[in-house]
Amino acid sequence: MRTGKQSSRRRAGVPLMRRGDRRTLKTLSGALASLLLIAQAAAQTNWLPSWNEGAAKQAVQKFVQSTTDPASAQFVAPEERVATFDQDGTLWVEKPMYSQVVYCLDRVPALVKENPALAQTEPFRTVLSGNRAAIAHLPTDELLKIVPAALSGMRVEAFQQEVRDWLAKARDPRWHRHYTELTYLPMVELMKYLRANGYKTYIVTGGGQDFVRVFAQQIYGVPPEQVVGTAGETKYSYGNDGKPILVKEPKLLLNDDKAGKPEGIHMMIGRRPHAAFGNSTGDREMLEYTRAGGGARLAMIVLHDDAKREYAYGPAQGLPDSQVGTFTQALYDEAQKDGWVVISMKNDWRQVFAFAP
Amino acid sequence: MRTGKQSSRRRAGVPLMRRGDRRTLKTLSGALASLLLIAQAAAQTNWLPSWNEGAAKQAVQKFVQSTTDPASAQFVAPEERVATFDQDGTLWVEKPMYSQVVYCLDRVPALVKENPALAQTEPFRTVLSGNRAAIAHLPTDELLKIVPAALSGMRVEAFQQEVRDWLAKARDPRWHRHYTELTYLPMVELMKYLRANGYKTYIVTGGGQDFVRVFAQQIYGVPPEQVVGTAGETKYSYGNDGKPILVKEPKLLLNDDKAGKPEGIHMMIGRRPHAAFGNSTGDREMLEYTRAGGGARLAMIVLHDDAKREYAYGPAQGLPDSQVGTFTQALYDEAQKDGWVVISMKNDWRQVFAFAP
Repeated sequence: MRTGKQSSRRRAGVPLMRRGDRRTLKTLSGALASLLLIAQAAAQTNWLPSWNEGAAKQAVQKFVQSTTDPASAQFVAPEERVATFDQDGTLWVEKPMYSQVVYCLDRVPALVKENPALAQTEPFRTVLSGNRAAIAHLPTDELLKIVPAALSGMRVEAFQQEVRDWLAKARDPRWHRHYTELTYLPMVELMKYLRANGYKTYIVTGGGQDFVRVFAQQIYGVPPEQVVGTAGETKYSYGNDGKPILVKEPKLLLNDDKAGKPEGIHMMIGRRPHAAFGNSTGDREMLEYTRAGGGARLAMIVLHDDAKREYAYGPAQGLPDSQVGTFTQALYDEAQKDGWVVISMKNDWRQVFAFAP
Repeated sequence: MRTGKQSSRRRAGVPLMRRGDRRTLKTLSGALASLLLIAQAAAQTNWLPSWNEGAAKQAVQKFVQSTTDPASAQFVAPEERVATFDQDGTLWVEKPMYSQVVYCLDRVPALVKENPALAQTEPFRTVLSGNRAAIAHLPTDELLKIVPAALSGMRVEAFQQEVRDWLAKARDPRWHRHYTELTYLPMVELMKYLRANGYKTYIVTGGGQDFVRVFAQQIYGVPPEQVVGTAGETKYSYGNDGKPILVKEPKLLLNDDKAGKPEGIHMMIGRRPHAAFGNSTGDREMLEYTRAGGGARLAMIVLHDDAKREYAYGPAQGLPDSQVGTFTQALYDEAQKDGWVVISMKNDWRQVFAFAP
């Protein structure tokens, strides 16, 4: 019996082993067979179920196939597989206002409590009034005065905790969902698909790096070290107990928008992306920089043309103009000329959010 | 015969398969058996053959064991396993002068060719003279005027090529080796040991980020995105052909030294290291910051007390004072008090370089 087993195993290409190893091998062979089935299943998985068939989905699939097939002329070495994603308007909703701006507005009462004199100055006075119409009419540059005040002056750990607390309770005004639910399901699928093919997915956002790092792992599967964003300085010092602390300063270090995106990518990653995804004029330079590399480079840009399920804004293609997430006709024309793929939310996405629309 | 094979395979826990799958499984079973042997070998590998037995080696081994054993109270989740390494004096030789300063000096003739007026100004005039004694006597802050001039004004790709060309030909004055050969073998072993245990190894250097990124993968196995260093701004613009370019600017963005190290770590990684390695006052804040985290945190500091095989400098422990890589007695005392492990080059390292001493 022993001999028979050994000889059949020898025929199966398995080297002879001692009794202890044999038991391990049994378990591992079982595990291997399961893995084999999983691998076969993975190859057949529809990674993009929320995408409609069409040019956008095909462009993604073709890019992944040609850059991961070692026999392809466009093969990209695994360590060079970098994909960068804008966040606001590309991965989650940016209307009617950036989520981070809502966070800053919600922080105003606490800021005024710490510094009562603020209550007499704009834009804090208007924000405190709670008059939504008046707040909506504040000029953007006036409104943005709140941002450095709301995002600095505390230890980095205290800031992270405040953001976590806010995310747990705040709800958006249209769907009454947590902001972290307002991610676009097709883009989350796309990130997973790229990662399953060896791509490192980075977020490259004009939003706050420290802000986005709090939830990027949970909602996108992107770890803190792969979040590049607008960043203020921090200052190293010592607390009352003599322990080292890092305090967030109101001084801008990296403005990760427009030309700041490729500059930030060079600073933080040191490699040119092979794929980049955006939705507005703030992403133009990142998409240009990506496309200008050699070999296969995928640039895609989301067009918000779906007022029913999300929002419709441009002003490209005759869509309503917008101060937030502006997608100009000139940008649309550059996309056509430079070979970027425009993603029509209306036509290319079968489903927009995990929760429904 | 077929039936016998199937039944023995069924006993081995392998599900029945079709003929095509069977062949794949044969190959994979062979590969699996090999992997099993490799895994067993890895567990028994002496990862630190260039270390002498002693407190330093034991501290490393104990740290790795306790943070990677899921049953340990000090277990660290794989994604939190971050180890940061200073470069100059910790991973490679920094004497008699930082390699990057030598690079900058070697660039002076090219700089003067581009801008002949420089030849009449200090420190360029002295450097051009080739008088080694006079160059050695230039005050450090005078000498450092060359650095921004040597490291900016060109496209990032052109800079990378210049560094590669320089590394291929430049030799150090003592061992007449390429600078990339002057890495400390025990530290390279330590990085591999940590990586084999799920740690992400980062370089956190006061040296230039773009400079170190050129060779970090090749000599340390550290990819560009895991090099944090002193960084100047880059400027995004368009070349004569209309293609996007990034040009290195002479403006400092991140001074990754002293307090700048934990600040840079927060900016670039967004996680507090569980292990950090340095050798001078420039690493103090990084080591403090690392130790101040909860759970197991390893801080180690290299003491250059080996004039025979490398260099001896402090002034800690009565060693000669040094402007480069200063290790003060106060730092030594802090190491003792805060539980950092001092690595004595003389006593803890069996071999210093791969090439010999």
